[in-house]
Amino acid sequence: MLLHPSFDINEKGHLTIGSLDAVELSETYGTPAYYLDTDAVRNMCRMYKAQFAAHFGGNSTPIYAGKALCFKKLYAIIAEEGLMADCVSPGELHTARAAGFPMERVFFHGNNKTDGDLRYALELGVGHIVVDSPDELAALDSIAAELGKEATVLLRITPGIDPHTHQKISTGNIDSKFGMAISTGQAYDFVKAALDAEHIRLDGFHCHVGSQIFDIDPFKEAAEIMLAFVAKVREEYGYLAPVLNIGGGFGVRYTEDDPQIDYEDNIRRLGQEFDAICKEFDIPKPSIMMEPGRSIVAAAGATLYTVGSVKEVSGFRNYVSVDGGMPDNPRYTLYQSRYTVVNAEKADAPADYPCTLAGRCCESGDLLAEGISIAKPERGTILAVLVTGAYNYSMASNYNRIPRPPVILISGGKSEIGVRRETYDDIIELDS
Amino acid sequence: MLLHPSFDINEKGHLTIGSLDAVELSETYGTPAYYLDTDAVRNMCRMYKAQFAAHFGGNSTPIYAGKALCFKKLYAIIAEEGLMADCVSPGELHTARAAGFPMERVFFHGNNKTDGDLRYALELGVGHIVVDSPDELAALDSIAAELGKEATVLLRITPGIDPHTHQKISTGNIDSKFGMAISTGQAYDFVKAALDAEHIRLDGFHCHVGSQIFDIDPFKEAAEIMLAFVAKVREEYGYLAPVLNIGGGFGVRYTEDDPQIDYEDNIRRLGQEFDAICKEFDIPKPSIMMEPGRSIVAAAGATLYTVGSVKEVSGFRNYVSVDGGMPDNPRYTLYQSRYTVVNAEKADAPADYPCTLAGRCCESGDLLAEGISIAKPERGTILAVLVTGAYNYSMASNYNRIPRPPVILISGGKSEIGVRRETYDDIIELDS
Repeated sequence: MLLHPSFDINEKGHLTIGSLDAVELSETYGTPAYYLDTDAVRNMCRMYKAQFAAHFGGNSTPIYAGKALCFKKLYAIIAEEGLMADCVSPGELHTARAAGFPMERVFFHGNNKTDGDLRYALELGVGHIVVDSPDELAALDSIAAELGKEATVLLRITPGIDPHTHQKISTGNIDSKFGMAISTGQAYDFVKAALDAEHIRLDGFHCHVGSQIFDIDPFKEAAEIMLAFVAKVREEYGYLAPVLNIGGGFGVRYTEDDPQIDYEDNIRRLGQEFDAICKEFDIPKPSIMMEPGRSIVAAAGATLYTVGSVKEVSGFRNYVSVDGGMPDNPRYTLYQSRYTVVNAEKADAPADYPCTLAGRCCESGDLLAEGISIAKPERGTILAVLVTGAYNYSMASNYNRIPRPPVILISGGKSEIGVRRETYDDIIELDS
Repeated sequence: MLLHPSFDINEKGHLTIGSLDAVELSETYGTPAYYLDTDAVRNMCRMYKAQFAAHFGGNSTPIYAGKALCFKKLYAIIAEEGLMADCVSPGELHTARAAGFPMERVFFHGNNKTDGDLRYALELGVGHIVVDSPDELAALDSIAAELGKEATVLLRITPGIDPHTHQKISTGNIDSKFGMAISTGQAYDFVKAALDAEHIRLDGFHCHVGSQIFDIDPFKEAAEIMLAFVAKVREEYGYLAPVLNIGGGFGVRYTEDDPQIDYEDNIRRLGQEFDAICKEFDIPKPSIMMEPGRSIVAAAGATLYTVGSVKEVSGFRNYVSVDGGMPDNPRYTLYQSRYTVVNAEKADAPADYPCTLAGRCCESGDLLAEGISIAKPERGTILAVLVTGAYNYSMASNYNRIPRPPVILISGGKSEIGVRRETYDDIIELDS
């Protein structure tokens, strides 16, 4: 096993993804290409489902955060596994609908839904709309009235904590574009408005702490603040929230330097904390929900590239360039995210060639990793970047008019296309 | 005029783009949408063409760097204006070809061209291939042999200077994925290999200093190093380079705080420097080429959005959220790039509402501007972000499955679609 159960090395010394030979896969599908071990995805779904039921209360269901990775066949898998789905845009709703995802199991998110988006969500029969602000609440109330419907909502609340993660993916602090803050008092007015709105059924609250969190403390802290809020709201308005959704954020191990995460143990301990906090505030335990995204798909994914140029800049460093880059994986240039890179043809050889992994874009910042070592590649070598299941395909662009790679699904030793490769003709399709 | 000639204010107090009312345009085309004043694009093309001919020598033609903005109708305009084109990928070549761009006027770039890319370029009859490394040279030589063709090339050379611009867009320093460095001696071996290669015709050298450069010093410094290299190569190998292409990089004014640039004066002074340096090294002046991209399209472009949520986080700041964000303009989250934001409905009112401009993505880093002031908007207000002609549409993604906005072309007081709006069905088109 290399880092995660989806990755291993076969008798040829080749990397395997879901037991299939990465070099043979590249012959079949070309490079660059994303791969996703859907058996590993299902395992994570089942783990979350079982653990939430055991420790968060019987009605607690994991909600898959589709922004991490979103395409029709993946939504079909999520539906089969009995999870709910967090959609953040009409495009994600549209994808879920096209996949036959049951709309009553969808939570529709976003800091800035247009009137058209709200209408679309109501028309589709989305289960929960997570309302971000009083403005949006008013808009939703009047659109629901117009359609003769009642909108079931959670309110997005800002707990005001700092999860010590990358600033760009920290969402729980007060100074945020998301939600209404408890500490400023705005959250209470928000609840009052929701309770007063005629076509709104308030089902509880939502918050989100951040991403890539490796311990339970930020979640515990959020739960303390949010459950205190639930208690205060009961006291003030006589309203007891049935649902508390504390968002996503469990971390994923990208490199050997990242900590191991025992998700089961984290969830068990979090469940105990929830029980203790509810007891402290003397409130019945709400259905506690969480929205894992990254932790369901990231470690099931890898990207395979072909090496082009191998350039040794004397006195500086070695650049290994591949046939992809920031268009298919912008996370290094955005967040300086670290990855594990493997020479897929010599996965068992010593990783003794220090290098920078560069993409093919005309931009110096188009790097995928710096300060890594791999078994020395040459022009034509297949390289793998591991743990690319989340926020790679979903963030991909056509920068430099580079077509987006396909997403290949692997299950039970077989592969199939989840998303086909974009062609040059696709790229000019929208041009007049 | 607001910042650039393409932007003004009409009698209603509305922003105009190429003399058309931004509010009326939004009624016609919806939001978000990119706009491009193609008359302003043509003016910049003509300015560069005239100034290069006057000061860089008769054969010097500006080469439009398509990575800044690339779609068929724009290539058609570039072709009509008699410029050459810098394409950095087969996708850009394919777009140029589909637009009927004359292939002999194309320079094909890239730090990592695949064998397939090189073959495609030769088959299309691309005028110049800018070869990045000896590996690539060898691959090109053998593909040219196979096709019975001769490849006309420039060699990408790394001059080893620091243009004092953002690290991610600085490309001229030695420690770079691009080209072969003079100071390490690798550039000389590269020239030798090109002169020896049977199916390669060496037409000169290429370098690139960086982007968003506001004075001529980095270009002058590059020219000194590169012309010294030209002289040394003549001395060593008896080869006199006919062409020296020193890349792009002229800056663009994004906000009132950025300096004004007098492009004509810069080019005139650069021409004098080139003459002096050639004299110093006692070499005939080569055809000096440059590759403006950003400076041709950026200031001709703007993006119009509709405001959704306006949220005042007491004690912190005001968030104005719009119906776009990092998927259509990732430059703030990538480079902390600053922009000028205007309330398009009150463009003449005092800009006295301090705020952060946020996008609609489920990501805290999805901001378009911080620390700005605009005339106070409300839900439904049309907002403009100015100077988005470069590196916005070209870098756009479908993050959160948000469809990419259209590019609307404006000329002579009329508008037409350059790139149509992406639909939700387009977004699931590649999904199996």
